[in-house]
This record gives sequence, structure tokens and C-alpha cells, in this order.
Amino acid sequence: MSRFLSGRFAGLKAYVPGEQPQDCNYIKLNTNESPYPPAPQVLEALSSEEIKKLRLYGDPEYRFLRETLAAYYKVLPENIMMGNGSDEILSFIFMAYCDKITGVSYPDISYGFYSVYADLYGIAKNEIPLRDDFTINADDYCSAGTTVVIANPNAPTGLCLSVEDIERIVKSNPNNMVVIDEAYVDFGGESCIPLIGKYDNLLIVQTYSKSRSLAGARLGYVIGHESLIADLDKLRYSTNPYNIDRLTMLVGKAAIEGQAYYDKNNDEIVRIREYTGVELRKMGFELTDSKTNFIFTRHPKLEGSRIYEGLKARGILVRHFNKARISDYVRITIGTEEQMDAMMTALKEMLCL
Amino acid sequence: MSRFLSGRFAGLKAYVPGEQPQDCNYIKLNTNESPYPPAPQVLEALSSEEIKKLRLYGDPEYRFLRETLAAYYKVLPENIMMGNGSDEILSFIFMAYCDKITGVSYPDISYGFYSVYADLYGIAKNEIPLRDDFTINADDYCSAGTTVVIANPNAPTGLCLSVEDIERIVKSNPNNMVVIDEAYVDFGGESCIPLIGKYDNLLIVQTYSKSRSLAGARLGYVIGHESLIADLDKLRYSTNPYNIDRLTMLVGKAAIEGQAYYDKNNDEIVRIREYTGVELRKMGFELTDSKTNFIFTRHPKLEGSRIYEGLKARGILVRHFNKARISDYVRITIGTEEQMDAMMTALKEMLCL
Repeated sequence: MSRFLSGRFAGLKAYVPGEQPQDCNYIKLNTNESPYPPAPQVLEALSSEEIKKLRLYGDPEYRFLRETLAAYYKVLPENIMMGNGSDEILSFIFMAYCDKITGVSYPDISYGFYSVYADLYGIAKNEIPLRDDFTINADDYCSAGTTVVIANPNAPTGLCLSVEDIERIVKSNPNNMVVIDEAYVDFGGESCIPLIGKYDNLLIVQTYSKSRSLAGARLGYVIGHESLIADLDKLRYSTNPYNIDRLTMLVGKAAIEGQAYYDKNNDEIVRIREYTGVELRKMGFELTDSKTNFIFTRHPKLEGSRIYEGLKARGILVRHFNKARISDYVRITIGTEEQMDAMMTALKEMLCL
Repeated sequence: MSRFLSGRFAGLKAYVPGEQPQDCNYIKLNTNESPYPPAPQVLEALSSEEIKKLRLYGDPEYRFLRETLAAYYKVLPENIMMGNGSDEILSFIFMAYCDKITGVSYPDISYGFYSVYADLYGIAKNEIPLRDDFTINADDYCSAGTTVVIANPNAPTGLCLSVEDIERIVKSNPNNMVVIDEAYVDFGGESCIPLIGKYDNLLIVQTYSKSRSLAGARLGYVIGHESLIADLDKLRYSTNPYNIDRLTMLVGKAAIEGQAYYDKNNDEIVRIREYTGVELRKMGFELTDSKTNFIFTRHPKLEGSRIYEGLKARGILVRHFNKARISDYVRITIGTEEQMDAMMTALKEMLCL
């Protein structure tokens, strides 16, 4: 830290992303990427004609992309804003809808970035404990008196709230915003997008990073009432109006055109998740009922940090959070069946099975 | 604006980018893009192998890109941070080095985004008038007692301060940050990058958008003392660690490898700028001594808004700022010689010459 940095950031602890080794020598099951390449349409979209057009700024309203997504989700283009990943969108949301007066409530165990945003913007945090079984008690968020942020399915637990529970939370907070982070919804969860026509205090955040095999393209979006999208666009135009680059816009449109390919992949990921769960349970592992592209698991005979280290020593990266209540667990991304088998072979070795 | 938006943004006026018509039917001289395509190396960099890797997150430290740029600018990788365009970097800088205690000084006529960032973050603004001839008086920024931000060359005037003047400003503000925005430096200006080894209160911001024909790829960077880069990285990791997508990283490296191509283009743009200046003066236009890829000009018989409208009606887009002191002027990007000739033919028609 330099002596010039504003004092309000003195205690700020930045987010720590999962390891991203660049040598590709690991079976990488640590940051919830898809094991499958992007849709063929994505590969076709990036012609040399389009690359030459990089000399020009893109459309800061990215109309063709907004329209494509709007048609897919059966909303209007005015209900959508795009971000440089959903992280950028979450940052705008915390900035827009929380401040010294309006705090934020979210589960104590959830996406680690929520507390970073709150600290960055000086927002009072109300971290609500999950139940002992890691489920969210929807009642805890009713009439919250703060902005509410819930990842659904939640990470790293993988567990879902029902749309009915979410609607109850939204209804009970008519004067506060409710933000549902659906990064993992395409692996068996149910989206709340159909609710946005009924409520002006609900935002749904999604991403191309997981179910559309495009973590490296940086594209997220938020869907909600047009007045909310106007708020967020105001902040976007006050920080970085050209936040989506031309190639990412093309990739975003092509990916929707390739949705059938992704739907098939996502079904396969669900199948492999269920298969892996059955096999791990045979080995004595306990798992949450994940509806995501990862599993969250522990073993009575092996601490989380030892699972992480043991797998890493065997060339397999998973994620361990050294945090109260979940330090026993590891989060393992669903890869191909071969990758899962390799991971389980390594675990058997570690457990002397 | 929704009823949920934090009250501190009630009066915020977002930045208004130049028009970006998507139909390509205009000669587009309004947002300082290059008339030339990106370097051949850029086209080669985006192989289908790399597009397939979009399923994976990129390296949030983008080491290979940082190293390439560091070697080119003869600094260390630790002296560089990359942004999703230099706008994102400027946003981080205003956030990091200004607050309720430390205000910001910048010229009253400059890049319009500076005042937007200041308003966004609730920063006290000290807008220092340019001299009547639009030059910056360096003395005005000595011992400023605030963070200082200067575009050099300045926009939309095109005028430069000398490196000696900048160094005087930096030296006289040992307890405040000085930020030099060198977006246009490659068209005849002189960079202050060599000063960063001498001062820990100096940041230089540059971009790939102008001189490297990559406005649509969104890539900017900031060079400075490693303690300052650590500050900015802290904010980046607290908002959006994966701010540079994989393809943009590749493009950024390839562009540096194609620097010889760009150097030639930039020489040609300077030649066309000088040629255009000579021709416009013959028609009665007054021009500043621009060292950028645009000219800033007015005509005694034609208001700025009429030049803008008249050219637009003839299929040519330029930029007019409806702002005190410069409303007589238009800013015209340097295009190809053919585009400049078409623009001047249109002006002759409007002036009945």
C-alpha cells in the first residue's frame, strides 16, 4: 500500500480468486469452469473481418446482444444490462443499492466477493448464518430492512432455495432490493427471471462463465425492472461505458445461438455430478445436494486442507476455503467423467481404499 | 432512476460517449479511432485453439502481457496494471487517490470523464481554467494540495505540456498524486514514462484504443511505482479481478509485437494531420497545434454546432462539445487522406467556397 491510498481502503482485504496456473498440467477442478469448449457458433463468430473492426469502438448499448438475450429470456432489451463478467455487475449493484444508510444482508457462507464489495463501498454487513445443514432459512431475509443478496443455488454449498421462497422474500421487502445471483442456475436450479415482471425490487444476475463455457470471455448480465437497469446503466456510463469489447459481444450472441449445444452439455454435467456423488458416498464422503456444476464434500477421516493438498500433489486442483464451519469441506468442479474418475482414484489412494 | 438508487447518485450525470452508429454509413471522425486495421500479428493471435480456451478463466495477473509491455517500455512488470480500457483505470485512480479529504485538480477543458468520476465518488473538484489560447499553465498545478490529473496531450485541444513542465508539477506535489493521461501521446507528444523511476507519486495512463487501432478490444494500462500499482491492484481485486478477457490479453501482446506497423501508421496520421491543417487554414479555419490524432478547429463564419450538423448531413461524423469556451470548435479525428479530402470538400460546400 502506498502512502497516497485513500484511508478508507486501509483495512480492505481484496478477493482471492482460485488458483489459475497457466501451465495446464493440472486437472483443473477448482474454479467451476466447464470441461467442454464453447459452442461451435462461438468459433465461427470471430472472423478476420470482425477482428479488423477492433479499430472501432463497439456499441456501448450492445443492442444486438441485448436483443438476442431478451428474446431468449422472454424479456425486453430494457430489462437487461451486460457486464464484464457478473463480478462487475455485482460491484455496480452494491454501489447502487447499498450505502451508509442501507446495509446489505447475505448468508455467512456464500460467494466470498459479497463481503469484499461491502467493505470496498463502506456498507454495513449483516451476515446471516446458514442453518447447520447449510440451507438458507428464507424467513431470515423477510422484512430484512436492508438490500438482500442471495446466490441461488448458493456457493460453495450448491444448495437451492425454491422460487416460492425467493418470491416470499421479495414480497416482504417492498422497500428494499433483492438480488439473486444465479451463476449456477443452469445445472438443475430454477430461475427467478419470470418474477421480474411482477416486482420492481428484484434483480437476477447470471453469467456466461459456467454453463456456457466462457469464463475467459468475461460476460455477465443482470435482468430486472427497466428502472433498475437504468440505475445500473447510469453507473456503467459513469465508470466504463465501453465495458464489453467487440469480440465478447459477438461471442455472447453466438453462444445464445448455440444454446442447444450447451443444454446438452449441462445435462451431461448433471449426470456426471450424480454419478460422482454416488461413487464418493461409497467411499465415505458426505455431500450436499448440489444443483450446480460442483460438489461440496467432506470425509470423516480427511480434513479439507488435506484433501486439497493430497489432490494437488497428485496433479488435481480443487478449492478449499479455510473458513469457519466449512474448513472440513472441499469444492470440486464437475469435469469430464474421466477427470472425475482420476480424482476419485487419487482420493482412494489417499484413503488407502 | 428507481426509488432504490442510493441518494448519493441522485444528481450524477453520466458521461456521454460520442455517437457510435452501427450501420457504418458514415465517415466516422468523431471518436478518435484509427483509420487503419490492427496489426497483422493481432489477426494471427486469435486461433481456434485460443477460442476453445475461453472455457477457462484467464490469468488475473496476465503475466505474459505485463511482461511484454514491461520489456517494451523498459519498466518492470510490477510497474504495470492493465484495465478494461483506460476508462476503467481512471475510475480506479479516482477511487484510490481522491476522497472527501483529498480533492482533484484538472483543466476545465479536458477529457469529460474526469468530472464524472469526481461526482461519482463524491470528490471535491478544482477545475482550473486553461489560458485563453487553451494552453495549460503548469504553475497552476504546482503545490496543488490535491490529486492532479492532466491529459497530455490534452483533449479536445490537442495541446502538449513539456516533460519538464510535468516534472516540475510532480516535484512540487511530493505529498499528492500526479496522474498523466497519455491516451494520445503516440502522435507527436513525449511520454513521461521515463520519470516513473524517479517519483513515487506519478502515474502514467495509456491505451491501445488510439495509436494501436484497438478501441473495440478495450485495453488500457497504467505505469508507475510498484507501491501505486499494488494500490490499484487491490481495488481491481476488490471489484473485478478477471477484468481482461483472454482474447484481449492475446491481442494486447500481439499488438506490441506489431509495434513497427503501428509506428508507421502513426507517422502517416501525423502527416495527414499536418496536410489537413494546411488545407483547412487556406479555407479560413483556425486550428490549435495538435499533437494528437485529431484536430481542434473553428471557423469565423460557421459555429461549431453548424459545422457538426452540416458535416453530419453530408455523411461525416465529427464531435462538437456544447460547452462554454469551446462551443465554436469541432474536434475532427484524423482519418485517411481520402476521408480528410471528403470532409474538406463538404466544408467547402458549406462555406460556399
